[in-house]
Amino acid sequence: MPNLRLPHQWFIACDATELRRRPIARTIQDTPLVLFRDGAGRAAALLDRCPHRNVPLSAGHMVDGLLQCSYHGWRFDGAGVCRVVPALTSEPDRKARHATTFPTVEQDGFVWVYSTPDVTPLRQPYRFPAVDRRYATIRRSVTMPGLMRHALENALDVPHTAFLHGGLFRTAARRHAIEVRVTRTASGADAEYVGEPRPSGLVGRVLSPGGGVVEHVDRFIMPCVAQVEYCLGDASHLLNTTAMTPVSESETRLWAVIQLRLPVPSRLVAPLVTPIAMRILRQDAAILGLQAKAIRRFGGEDFTSTEIDVLGPHIWRLLAAAADGGEAPAPFEHRVTMRV
Amino acid sequence: MPNLRLPHQWFIACDATELRRRPIARTIQDTPLVLFRDGAGRAAALLDRCPHRNVPLSAGHMVDGLLQCSYHGWRFDGAGVCRVVPALTSEPDRKARHATTFPTVEQDGFVWVYSTPDVTPLRQPYRFPAVDRRYATIRRSVTMPGLMRHALENALDVPHTAFLHGGLFRTAARRHAIEVRVTRTASGADAEYVGEPRPSGLVGRVLSPGGGVVEHVDRFIMPCVAQVEYCLGDASHLLNTTAMTPVSESETRLWAVIQLRLPVPSRLVAPLVTPIAMRILRQDAAILGLQAKAIRRFGGEDFTSTEIDVLGPHIWRLLAAAADGGEAPAPFEHRVTMRV
Amino acid sequence: MPNLRLPHQWFIACDATELRRRPIARTIQDTPLVLFRDGAGRAAALLDRCPHRNVPLSAGHMVDGLLQCSYHGWRFDGAGVCRVVPALTSEPDRKARHATTFPTVEQDGFVWVYSTPDVTPLRQPYRFPAVDRRYATIRRSVTMPGLMRHALENALDVPHTAFLHGGLFRTAARRHAIEVRVTRTASGADAEYVGEPRPSGLVGRVLSPGGGVVEHVDRFIMPCVAQVEYCLGDASHLLNTTAMTPVSESETRLWAVIQLRLPVPSRLVAPLVTPIAMRILRQDAAILGLQAKAIRRFGGEDFTSTEIDVLGPHIWRLLAAAADGGEAPAPFEHRVTMRV
Repeated sequence: MPNLRLPHQWFIACDATELRRRPIARTIQDTPLVLFRDGAGRAAALLDRCPHRNVPLSAGHMVDGLLQCSYHGWRFDGAGVCRVVPALTSEPDRKARHATTFPTVEQDGFVWVYSTPDVTPLRQPYRFPAVDRRYATIRRSVTMPGLMRHALENALDVPHTAFLHGGLFRTAARRHAIEVRVTRTASGADAEYVGEPRPSGLVGRVLSPGGGVVEHVDRFIMPCVAQVEYCLGDASHLLNTTAMTPVSESETRLWAVIQLRLPVPSRLVAPLVTPIAMRILRQDAAILGLQAKAIRRFGGEDFTSTEIDVLGPHIWRLLAAAADGGEAPAPFEHRVTMRV
Repeated sequence: MPNLRLPHQWFIACDATELRRRPIARTIQDTPLVLFRDGAGRAAALLDRCPHRNVPLSAGHMVDGLLQCSYHGWRFDGAGVCRVVPALTSEPDRKARHATTFPTVEQDGFVWVYSTPDVTPLRQPYRFPAVDRRYATIRRSVTMPGLMRHALENALDVPHTAFLHGGLFRTAARRHAIEVRVTRTASGADAEYVGEPRPSGLVGRVLSPGGGVVEHVDRFIMPCVAQVEYCLGDASHLLNTTAMTPVSESETRLWAVIQLRLPVPSRLVAPLVTPIAMRILRQDAAILGLQAKAIRRFGGEDFTSTEIDVLGPHIWRLLAAAADGGEAPAPFEHRVTMRV
Repeated sequence: MPNLRLPHQWFIACDATELRRRPIARTIQDTPLVLFRDGAGRAAALLDRCPHRNVPLSAGHMVDGLLQCSYHGWRFDGAGVCRVVPALTSEPDRKARHATTFPTVEQDGFVWVYSTPDVTPLRQPYRFPAVDRRYATIRRSVTMPGLMRHALENALDVPHTAFLHGGLFRTAARRHAIEVRVTRTASGADAEYVGEPRPSGLVGRVLSPGGGVVEHVDRFIMPCVAQVEYCLGDASHLLNTTAMTPVSESETRLWAVIQLRLPVPSRLVAPLVTPIAMRILRQDAAILGLQAKAIRRFGGEDFTSTEIDVLGPHIWRLLAAAADGGEAPAPFEHRVTMRV
């Protein structure tokens, strides 16, 4: 399965607070972009290459709401139109002098960029869940080595937690066979864990000091969102939504939004949960790095799956169809037993 | 436009003073060379690879006027002939044991090497201008990132000076529209700036403290020389001649010879001018580095030119014809207006 | 001559003492391997890639005599069989879940690995010479840059010693023309030096303080052994046997076993000989590094040989035939004169 380029999709380029007075450089699907705010404060994204002599526009600076190239001083607006060619006596605006422009939307505190340039988008970016004041919200961004599709599987995979995150999350001992309902639609795939006991590790004790049965659903939402939801009765609710950005073959950026309601004051939640979440992410980054390095050394991946790899193969099939521009695979539903 | 290899051309390999008792390694057009002085003190250039087991000859040393390989002690003269194979009882000189040899000429204090080996050159190297005792001469060598053709355009380009070298050279404010006469012949291209006011920045004030009108010509001389000439009446004359060496796709070496007559004692000129010249070269190196990195990331260049890119496109056309071994493009002349 | 892959051959993966409780990673012919000891203490070698999600198995650890992957906890025995898939409720052992397995033998204190996986070996690994108690034995492992075939020629080449190891070994002055008998069979090639005076450098003085005539044979034993033997009468006998491991295009690992009988107490031999041997190996590593770098820069090797390159071309021909899986070249014998 080669590296996929997904056309006509929205990905997060940066946190909205990162984008201020200066242009910044970001890469999505191996494409170098420059992001800036135009004269009206609107976020804009151009191909990071001046059409004149190909110097990165991100090395320039803002002049009167226009992005000025540092080599010859050409200036571009947020729509990519060349508005100034300093030494030229004729009209600067010509089509060949336009910078390639990517639709951009600011939403939920993120700057989203559309992966196909110079078009009207076919859809809107993903909206993060809205929660009320009883929830604490933790936002963190981390970089993972390797391809987005491997990071997506990792984020939604249960069996690895007992090994890679042993002690923090599940543990290898005392396992229960439970049922998992797997559903795939055109826009994503879910795995619902039925009758799962409270996870036995530190994370479980934080979520539900009193034990109990959890409602647990893992969701993949096309093309880049992994969502993990845990309910323990009325008291505890965890919604961990991660939007991923496919930077390159060797890098995926994660934008995690953790929304939590716990039977403790909400201002105590972030200090309690953040160190655990970051430790889990570091362990995942380490294993994804080893996986990416091995795939690179062997010149490609060669995976074997079992029936308990419940979401990975569906994620990959949905992404492959979107990369081809073909139709989504037919809806699908089945049940498997897994020891957790 | 791919990286060009120019056959049958002379390029500077090193300053003559760099070549003393030890062989030195240089690269021209991606070809590794070893330079040394033979028993008579003549500069010689061989392919930097022993024909026997391919160890670089530049790792060897001189023995009795011959270059000795450090692995098995084979020795070569300045014509590339194998004169000694130590343990061999038969005659060492065989054609297969010759080192590939590049014609070499020492001239104007530089060692020039011909880009096609094992042939009689079709022409002589470029001769730097001869000047009288009223001139101060500054010689400097610097390395620029990227291809020679981009460094040549940069050296002869006026519009970037107000931005990249703002304050030092021209400034963006107070611009005058003047006429530029552009001429292309089989051996180069010129741009003559008619009625240009004295440049407004620091460089202009040094050249002509009293202001006035300048005569300004930028010249490209095939295949590697960029020359900038400024006259301000009888008092001031600047001739900045840069011979370039295409080292590789990512590196161009510049050999600048600045010849200056100013209305101040000539011994004061170099201390005054050198720091300004070096600062301009550092700024150019930074922008050419950004340009080269972007071209590499995008897998090739994609330039748009306007009518005020007066010399670049002519330089590239002349070089492309020379690389193909085809005929030079037909002579050409036209006039454009530029705001400087 | 491209980089060769030799099927159905044994190479040393590690010293037997390196392989203890933890799995270790080794590379042979560009193939990443994980080595470990199974529950019975037997050495085993698998492809260093979990069949499930391709994480290197060498990042795992041993559990109950099985190698456990660090991502999902899959466990493999020494035959590559998948014995545990933790969360799975069905039978773990399926053919697609087997790890690719390389035959492994522990012999002479080394762990040897067969270069073709999942087969019964056609032959046994090379056996190092057995010597009696009068001999001192020195074992050392070093890494050489470049291809195995270049390291093999280097280890058995006489003419370079006067230059690269000048003073330590032979010297360039006072040379004698002697006869060399060269024999090639299907399994190797020998060069016997007839009537060679004692080498004039430090090595010669250590081997035979009283001078005399040496019996000297250099042997290549397919596919990876270089052996140098010196006898000086009854008193002194040197057997330097080096098994080489082709790690990659840029690295060859040497496993040298030096067996020495000298007219001094054997406990004095190693302290005397080891520093000289290590210095020679460092000089060889430096020149092989220069050779490898030049070959890489030029995109391949371009060698010229003379009649005194007595073994190199035979080594390469034997290896090329073994790589093709073709027949070995016909036996061959001839004599040449060499000045040593």
